[in-house]
Amino acid sequence: MLTKFLKSKTAFVFIEFQHEWIGENAPLKNRFVKDRELFDLSVSNAAQIITKAREKEWMIVHAGLDLSHDPEYLVFAGGTGKLGLAGAIPKVGTWQESGSRFVPPFCPEAGEFIVKGRAGASVLKHSTLDPFLRHNGISNLVLMGFATHVCVESTLRDAHDSGYNCIVVTDACGAFEQQQADYFEKHVLHHFGEGCITPELLSIL
Amino acid sequence: MLTKFLKSKTAFVFIEFQHEWIGENAPLKNRFVKDRELFDLSVSNAAQIITKAREKEWMIVHAGLDLSHDPEYLVFAGGTGKLGLAGAIPKVGTWQESGSRFVPPFCPEAGEFIVKGRAGASVLKHSTLDPFLRHNGISNLVLMGFATHVCVESTLRDAHDSGYNCIVVTDACGAFEQQQADYFEKHVLHHFGEGCITPELLSIL
Amino acid sequence: MLTKFLKSKTAFVFIEFQHEWIGENAPLKNRFVKDRELFDLSVSNAAQIITKAREKEWMIVHAGLDLSHDPEYLVFAGGTGKLGLAGAIPKVGTWQESGSRFVPPFCPEAGEFIVKGRAGASVLKHSTLDPFLRHNGISNLVLMGFATHVCVESTLRDAHDSGYNCIVVTDACGAFEQQQADYFEKHVLHHFGEGCITPELLSIL
Amino acid sequence: MLTKFLKSKTAFVFIEFQHEWIGENAPLKNRFVKDRELFDLSVSNAAQIITKAREKEWMIVHAGLDLSHDPEYLVFAGGTGKLGLAGAIPKVGTWQESGSRFVPPFCPEAGEFIVKGRAGASVLKHSTLDPFLRHNGISNLVLMGFATHVCVESTLRDAHDSGYNCIVVTDACGAFEQQQADYFEKHVLHHFGEGCITPELLSIL
Repeated sequence: MLTKFLKSKTAFVFIEFQHEWIGENAPLKNRFVKDRELFDLSVSNAAQIITKAREKEWMIVHAGLDLSHDPEYLVFAGGTGKLGLAGAIPKVGTWQESGSRFVPPFCPEAGEFIVKGRAGASVLKHSTLDPFLRHNGISNLVLMGFATHVCVESTLRDAHDSGYNCIVVTDACGAFEQQQADYFEKHVLHHFGEGCITPELLSIL
Repeated sequence: MLTKFLKSKTAFVFIEFQHEWIGENAPLKNRFVKDRELFDLSVSNAAQIITKAREKEWMIVHAGLDLSHDPEYLVFAGGTGKLGLAGAIPKVGTWQESGSRFVPPFCPEAGEFIVKGRAGASVLKHSTLDPFLRHNGISNLVLMGFATHVCVESTLRDAHDSGYNCIVVTDACGAFEQQQADYFEKHVLHHFGEGCITPELLSIL
Repeated sequence: MLTKFLKSKTAFVFIEFQHEWIGENAPLKNRFVKDRELFDLSVSNAAQIITKAREKEWMIVHAGLDLSHDPEYLVFAGGTGKLGLAGAIPKVGTWQESGSRFVPPFCPEAGEFIVKGRAGASVLKHSTLDPFLRHNGISNLVLMGFATHVCVESTLRDAHDSGYNCIVVTDACGAFEQQQADYFEKHVLHHFGEGCITPELLSIL
Repeated sequence: MLTKFLKSKTAFVFIEFQHEWIGENAPLKNRFVKDRELFDLSVSNAAQIITKAREKEWMIVHAGLDLSHDPEYLVFAGGTGKLGLAGAIPKVGTWQESGSRFVPPFCPEAGEFIVKGRAGASVLKHSTLDPFLRHNGISNLVLMGFATHVCVESTLRDAHDSGYNCIVVTDACGAFEQQQADYFEKHVLHHFGEGCITPELLSIL
């Protein structure tokens, strides 16, 4: 399917290539990621991809999370009594000023789209990504980022339901453990999209 | 958390208790479900739950899938060139007239809400469920149904991002294999909600 | 702009060509519509359009409202304490079995899409219309129906925000009074789309 | 209805109290607003409201538009070939750095929610407002801002369809001309919510 993705109808979506996951001391990585080698490899793979995608002028989208304007986490009512990430994020205190900074080479450049809004796991939900994609006639998404089984997967599932064709670059996504990456590829991906690996993707850009 | 769910703010959401999964010859079950005992147990658990929830007058929501008005699967452009369920459903030919019939005791009764719309895995997406919940002041969802790691999980993830507190009754949900149920409970659920089992739930209704 | 609408990227959206507005005794028309001639003209214009659009094989979408499965209007919590249509519809008792029937020549035919879901004024909101449009690569909408300043306008505004280009066929839409139609054309339309009239549209089909 | 709005379930939503409309030289006001007295009165009314609402600790929401991170208007594909605001905003060049600055006394303070995302007329669409409202159990909105018949009205219509009860403070909203304000009150408001005026609102805070 990947080879059928026309450049004019495709966006490369980089999910949370920000300080929390990949900066110095990367707080979320340090807290949650056990299989570090796997995780670090995904970052270097994604770096290769963004470099070549820029050279070849594919559309690049930066889908981060940024709650720096909301230090009390009002969007989650402060997190009290909230299940899941909506309760956990305020408790841990992530995605404020320093945590939400993009990290080179994933810092937005001119002509690249920065997603605004969003407070959940899917980067499409309650954000400017969907109108951007619609206005630009984009129907195919190439997904990369963190964490594979949390925000990347929620985005994949949401994008499927919204009518997009999604390819996940599995070795440019980071899970906490190898087992999660394996499960995602075997039991989840085919219900909502397809997978590819970095060398395959690079070879057709 | 379950014990804090006020009746007036809670809905029991039954996902796809329809012929495809639990009717005679249940086509989807027969095609995909390997661990049948596990699956059948979830149906009998859910039957106990709906019976008691009706007795005790909890709000009941029937969230099925029904494409019987769309025999050509126009909603998925016929499925050609579509990845995931949007491609698979038209190919398999599911969710037409017979497949979408509700199965006793899960047939809607007076005072119970029937979700309309929806064409994806999340029963909240593009459906009447969200305005129903909003208009009725419901902030807590109790989720049951099929398949655990496909539509139940997509609904859970979507509901979390929309700001609901969700409890999944894990033994009233059916996966294809035990491994998927186990993975869901261990690696997915806590990011988006909480789990409980049928006896716990019944004891507090 | 109309002349640039490619057939493959355009859908004709017929909003509420149902018994409530245009059937025998049309209850909503009889209750609300003062300028009947204007209203009836819009129906005959739309009839010409659907006939030619079918001949020329443009994509046709039937966007009705149908609450026949929800006789207690649970979706609006029964309407008590609800402002706007959500309070008014249950009070008036519209959009049940007979009111929601499509009226010839606007009854759906094979190959035409029937929107499901939706409980508000915009036919895009909480319905299957958006995934249908996305899956089919449709970016242009031609809107017709009732009432101009209520559901047609809400759809236009919502579609604009979702990233569609919309043309409203102003003389194939019915308002309650001429003044509303005039105001819509002069003060609303250009913020969200463009207008055309039936002869123009017919000439390019 | 206003008197039934519980403080814990209500948010005051200030729409676009930003430089484009109310700053020095306010570019959008200068370009579009003909009835300046009416417009300026709405600003002083809203100033009274925000002051008293802060004193009395009602929840305050700042729903601006900010495209300063998107100088090429990628979200609208640069605006070329786009109808409505999506075409007009890039042409006029509004909502960049200076235009999107909040203006005293409408600058966000601690404990007040700043909406992120959104690229259309409705401040609910594709923004963090809906999850904020949901997480905080808010079902009632008090709307104020600019322009009455454009973004305030789109928000009102969208909020209605999402299941909120909305009150528009009509004399704290600014239209381009008196006629638009009058039409909005007479022909639009009751379909989607209710109106009140500043003295009424102040008397119950």
